[in-house]
Amino acid sequence: MVEIAGSPNLDAIRKAHGRIRPYIHRTPVLTSERLDAASGASIFFKCENFQKVGAFKARGATNAVFALDDKTVRRGVATHSSGNHGAAVARAAKLRGVPAYIVMPSKSAKVKIRAVQSYDAQVVFCEPTEESREIKCAEVINKTGATLIHSFENEHVIAGQATAAVELLEDVPDLDVIMCPVGGGGLLSGTAMAAKSMRPQMQVIAVEPENADDAAQSFRAGRRLVTEKKFTIADGLRTNIGEPNFAIVQQYVDDIVTVSEEGIVAAMRTIWETMKIVIEPSAAVPCAAIMETKIDTRGKRVGVILTGGNVDLDTLLWNP
Amino acid sequence: MVEIAGSPNLDAIRKAHGRIRPYIHRTPVLTSERLDAASGASIFFKCENFQKVGAFKARGATNAVFALDDKTVRRGVATHSSGNHGAAVARAAKLRGVPAYIVMPSKSAKVKIRAVQSYDAQVVFCEPTEESREIKCAEVINKTGATLIHSFENEHVIAGQATAAVELLEDVPDLDVIMCPVGGGGLLSGTAMAAKSMRPQMQVIAVEPENADDAAQSFRAGRRLVTEKKFTIADGLRTNIGEPNFAIVQQYVDDIVTVSEEGIVAAMRTIWETMKIVIEPSAAVPCAAIMETKIDTRGKRVGVILTGGNVDLDTLLWNP
Repeated sequence: MVEIAGSPNLDAIRKAHGRIRPYIHRTPVLTSERLDAASGASIFFKCENFQKVGAFKARGATNAVFALDDKTVRRGVATHSSGNHGAAVARAAKLRGVPAYIVMPSKSAKVKIRAVQSYDAQVVFCEPTEESREIKCAEVINKTGATLIHSFENEHVIAGQATAAVELLEDVPDLDVIMCPVGGGGLLSGTAMAAKSMRPQMQVIAVEPENADDAAQSFRAGRRLVTEKKFTIADGLRTNIGEPNFAIVQQYVDDIVTVSEEGIVAAMRTIWETMKIVIEPSAAVPCAAIMETKIDTRGKRVGVILTGGNVDLDTLLWNP
Repeated sequence: MVEIAGSPNLDAIRKAHGRIRPYIHRTPVLTSERLDAASGASIFFKCENFQKVGAFKARGATNAVFALDDKTVRRGVATHSSGNHGAAVARAAKLRGVPAYIVMPSKSAKVKIRAVQSYDAQVVFCEPTEESREIKCAEVINKTGATLIHSFENEHVIAGQATAAVELLEDVPDLDVIMCPVGGGGLLSGTAMAAKSMRPQMQVIAVEPENADDAAQSFRAGRRLVTEKKFTIADGLRTNIGEPNFAIVQQYVDDIVTVSEEGIVAAMRTIWETMKIVIEPSAAVPCAAIMETKIDTRGKRVGVILTGGNVDLDTLLWNP
């Protein structure tokens, strides 16, 4: 295993697991005869939609917040995120009894703002641009001395996210393939490190929406490209892949494939209908790759990380 | 334990469990910190929405079909049901390699007809009245020699449905209360027999939609009343309680409470949103009783059977 600067190894991942275990769920692994029959594969779904805050993000954020020393953490933690990572940092800070400052675009969905506030975090509003988020977050950090918990460019976050794959491989040791979606690459880099350390012969396949395919393009080009994004309903995956994350991905990931928006919606509905579980669009992305046969899983034992279940239940994506 | 003619005892229930075990899922028991905090109870959800055919009905139908002797079962099995029981009988017959005749109203949802047909059963259409269903079913039986598998007035069906409570009590032995919905009373009578046999000090509480409250009215009157039903979204519970079922209910059930349509929809949405699982309206009925505090569960350990997850995903009940 090649060491990459700032990247966690299996020891760091195991340490992360021990650190966060009291604060997270060991989520179940579900299977579906019907989906196996349809795909010709044996699929093992790691249900992070059942995780605390409704997404795997609880793992990385909790590890990063609890890895800080007492003196540092007392000044608080900060992040910019309109999604699950913001809620996850807020929850971890509350568990550790320290302040959290979460920078969110002022036009964020009220349910997301309320989720963060329910953990007593201070919400700091910004404009809906990457630049405004980063400036606002830097301001907060300058003023408070809080520590930035970046949602993917952070080795403790990566090690925390990796623990989902560790549990999946503990429960189903003989997987041929592990699949997850890729946005910033926190989950993917952690998953790849864990998988290749625990079971080197295993394939690691990432899946990305066609409309936000910077990681797939970068993977083929052999260098990190910052691309323009079209709209995707898998809103958690719009982010460009991070630098340290891409270095790990280049080293340990076997392929990155892309799926259509229609494929994502269809896969999401199929999972709800067949497995009776609620998953968010980003979580459906790897399932779409299997259903659209973007990768050949026939006869293989495939682990899929279902990343989260936070979805607006006022409307249905397939019937807006 | 008083013996009631045609009712199963714990031995029959254990025998049913052994008989159906190869063909059904042992469904997980889920908990939710958030719902516990909101209710003041510790709630253990037995997830029969994850059961084969998407509902507990797989248990009773499988037991009844597999309890028949080889010579009898070879002529096939028949039932009238537009819902989960029809699919469950069709599946059990396919597993046993015998014909199934399922009488369904011709205006049934296509998805329900397809579900039955997917198990190679023969669908026989009837008018959408109770009378037409029964006449059509009798005709089929006369012609084919098939055995009627009634959806609740059948001791093997009752014993099969009871196995959900057995598993729940095996997983969580120290429950104070067990709750389930009541329609025809197959699940309720089985649950009550199992619960009071395994843990006599436990309370058994049934919940019914206000708009179809014949079981609650009958329970208070001390005799089985056939009442007129209003529309309820919990369509699985419109049926009048069966005679043998009511006899068991009178003996072993502690109370039957009712809930509003709004309460059912709100509970269903809360479960989807909080627990990230898909449950059907009938399954939300006991949860509605807890959330509307129709029964006092504060400080108690409460088992709730989530009966099924088959719901039309073209629309949302809270946003039709």
